[in-house]
Amino acid sequence: MAQAGDIEKVKSLSAIFVIFGATGDLSRKKIFPSFFELTKANMLPKNFRILGAARSKLARKEFIDLVRESITTDDTTAWKKFESKVDYITADVAEDVNLDKVGKYIDNYENEIENCPQRVFYMAIANTIYEKAFENLGMHELNKGCKIHDCKARIVVEKPFGQNLETAIRLDEVLNKYFTEEQIYRIDHFLGKETVQNIFALRFANEIFEPIWNNHYIDHVQITAAEFGGIERRGAFYDQTGALRDFVQNHLLQLLTLVAMEVPEKFNRESIRKRKIEVLESLRPMDEEEIKTSTVRGQYEGYLTEDNVATSSKTETYALLKLFIENKRWQGVPFYIRTGKRLTGKVTSIILSFKEKTHKLFENFWEQPMPNHITIQIDPTEGIGIRLIAKKPGVGTQLEPVDMEFCYKTSFDIPNPNAYERLLLDIIAGDQTLFLGPIRASWKFIDPIRNVWDNGKPELAVYKQGSWGPEEANKLIKRDGREWLAPLLTICKI
Amino acid sequence: MAQAGDIEKVKSLSAIFVIFGATGDLSRKKIFPSFFELTKANMLPKNFRILGAARSKLARKEFIDLVRESITTDDTTAWKKFESKVDYITADVAEDVNLDKVGKYIDNYENEIENCPQRVFYMAIANTIYEKAFENLGMHELNKGCKIHDCKARIVVEKPFGQNLETAIRLDEVLNKYFTEEQIYRIDHFLGKETVQNIFALRFANEIFEPIWNNHYIDHVQITAAEFGGIERRGAFYDQTGALRDFVQNHLLQLLTLVAMEVPEKFNRESIRKRKIEVLESLRPMDEEEIKTSTVRGQYEGYLTEDNVATSSKTETYALLKLFIENKRWQGVPFYIRTGKRLTGKVTSIILSFKEKTHKLFENFWEQPMPNHITIQIDPTEGIGIRLIAKKPGVGTQLEPVDMEFCYKTSFDIPNPNAYERLLLDIIAGDQTLFLGPIRASWKFIDPIRNVWDNGKPELAVYKQGSWGPEEANKLIKRDGREWLAPLLTICKI
Repeated sequence: MAQAGDIEKVKSLSAIFVIFGATGDLSRKKIFPSFFELTKANMLPKNFRILGAARSKLARKEFIDLVRESITTDDTTAWKKFESKVDYITADVAEDVNLDKVGKYIDNYENEIENCPQRVFYMAIANTIYEKAFENLGMHELNKGCKIHDCKARIVVEKPFGQNLETAIRLDEVLNKYFTEEQIYRIDHFLGKETVQNIFALRFANEIFEPIWNNHYIDHVQITAAEFGGIERRGAFYDQTGALRDFVQNHLLQLLTLVAMEVPEKFNRESIRKRKIEVLESLRPMDEEEIKTSTVRGQYEGYLTEDNVATSSKTETYALLKLFIENKRWQGVPFYIRTGKRLTGKVTSIILSFKEKTHKLFENFWEQPMPNHITIQIDPTEGIGIRLIAKKPGVGTQLEPVDMEFCYKTSFDIPNPNAYERLLLDIIAGDQTLFLGPIRASWKFIDPIRNVWDNGKPELAVYKQGSWGPEEANKLIKRDGREWLAPLLTICKI
Repeated sequence: MAQAGDIEKVKSLSAIFVIFGATGDLSRKKIFPSFFELTKANMLPKNFRILGAARSKLARKEFIDLVRESITTDDTTAWKKFESKVDYITADVAEDVNLDKVGKYIDNYENEIENCPQRVFYMAIANTIYEKAFENLGMHELNKGCKIHDCKARIVVEKPFGQNLETAIRLDEVLNKYFTEEQIYRIDHFLGKETVQNIFALRFANEIFEPIWNNHYIDHVQITAAEFGGIERRGAFYDQTGALRDFVQNHLLQLLTLVAMEVPEKFNRESIRKRKIEVLESLRPMDEEEIKTSTVRGQYEGYLTEDNVATSSKTETYALLKLFIENKRWQGVPFYIRTGKRLTGKVTSIILSFKEKTHKLFENFWEQPMPNHITIQIDPTEGIGIRLIAKKPGVGTQLEPVDMEFCYKTSFDIPNPNAYERLLLDIIAGDQTLFLGPIRASWKFIDPIRNVWDNGKPELAVYKQGSWGPEEANKLIKRDGREWLAPLLTICKI
């Protein structure tokens, strides 16, 4: 992961980003605004160029206007500085249109700056056309870097990478024909979030947590990624993908690996990837019976009338899995992981719920169970909470739960760079720590669930918009004598 | 300890408190104001009487005026209600003056209310005259309770109980001639403080602390009771007593027992006393050499000119001991306990400082050691803090210490009853959980230190008023490669 001094290093480099799919949602909502913020904060290299590339025949001015629409700022100095770095080219990477022009553009830029910039190809296009795109990049030798220094281009791919294990392997094969692992940046923007990164610090820089971070003390873990929003304009994509592929396979399983992994040997790409893969490979595979009883798939009321959604679609907008990690640390500890769209609010959190032991020192303690919890909250605010039991002030010994919390906003008077900004800087710096390796292990676990779901089991559960999801999710956890802790344990209130 | 419903129980009882030493500092500053607050809060029995007793020949009206001076209130209703419960008698318990009148007064009160009130004798007198006082109470059969129901009177004694092991044993012998342990309330008002009581809840109602509450994880413990104030009008008492007897032997060793004890079998007087004595008996005795090197005795500049202090007094107003508990849980963990008067501010806290393990996952972590700490803070505000290591927001992985805290004031919208109020209610309810048993074990540990100190070793270290104590205290802890954590870790700032 980039060290602090690396901002200076990044600024001393040169780079050119080619954004394929430059007129799409991802580019306009995430990538360009992030580059704008980085420009404003003066964190980008002096020699820096963004080349938007898409099928639309647009003049540079038209494209700039399009980008401008999605950036809310009245800082005209910053905007002008940013704008001067942006260019546009009509090109289709999947259909092999004008890729030679892209290559020429980069060569010209190299001549112009008399330097050897880092070349980055950002694939902000539908993953269904990734395979053709990779082939075309390779055919045009765009996998190669600047010729003077024999450096290598970098490629950024988005989630979900593949639709299942088979297509993910196939995509990796094609990608690896032209790009080595050192060149590949598989992005999961969740991993760029401060609190997610702080899981490492929390777990491995604090001596007080490791002793209790195991099945002797932890009763179960809940990982929640609840969204207030719906599928927005992404009906065509979403209806083909569903929550399991869009969120569970990547974001939720990634959070799971961070909270469950063993101590990595070093804080680098290799050690962390190794530990993550160990967790994913230790997931107990779910057979059909378990999938029927230990998962919930839901769809919000009204989904079928969204644009570009099949009228009889069975695509899930809510997914819940109860899963187990089969190793010494986690044997017997259920992980409830869930995500959904159009829920009551935006909450992303990991909650570790601790066991209550059997001594009866405090009698009123046992009338009402009050376990300890550790909350790692990512949305709506970032923070760490510990739910403790304390004595209620006054005569007598009544116990009550209280929350200790550490909130990023109040503790650090530093604006957090957003996840994309952070990851874009890491790409320029060549730091892969927060990026994914080949993601076969997660597909291997997800595919059997996808298959049983596609065969209609368990029943698709419809839930109301603005609720916390289908009633089946409550039934599932209540059956285990537990309850959903998010949003009950929401900390660092706004 | 009184359960919540016990306020109703207390109110249903009848009680009469005889306060010997009713015109003294303790009575005026603590006891009467506490009874006034309890009256205001309507927490006392309906049939309730306070009989002030002292040598001074005062009319009731004069005494009431004296009490009124130390109670700041403009609530005339509450004052009138309180005043109506207070009476005065000229009596000297040590010199056996008018104790028969005290007995008669109580008998008359019983007849008046046609009930059998709980009799309580509060010995707010110098402990040097305790022995004679106990004998006289016994001679006048004031140890007995109301004759109708054959109940027993209670006696409240203050700290320090004795001047050393020998006198404490002697006092206990005399006391036990007339009073059984069930009748004796040895008060240490520190134990009535909310946070002190909360140590029980923290340690034994939370599953996440017990696994790390031992020498595998804890590097050392610091217990601090720093006072801003000086000896005030208590020169004669203090110069004969010193910090070791006045604070260390009772308050600090009591805090030590709470933080160090094993899990009690039950939350009652017997189990808790047993666990406390186990800790005190496990204190490694200090020989002369260790006392010279591992203790500090200090005196503030200007102490010798205080009223009623000998001009060449060597009495310590600051005491520091580094001690060890010889059992499985605490072997090898030093406890630094210190107290002093006229220091920079009022801070009372227990801080557990955790070990840093040897893995070097985060390199910058080791340039600057950042151990975890748990702070149990009693003064100036009550709260629990955990010092964690978190990632500083931004690109790179800089680690920084942050504090999670739980503050009584902000978490509970309930006024805390003060320590005396709480303990007075427990006396009425007959609950001895927060009171001391015979305190021989602490004197046994303290006496050898007192003897070496009285022989002039180590040198008395003079310190400036308003400092954090003598430089010798800093040298002692620095020699061990540690630093004072209070007030550095002060939490719940006002």
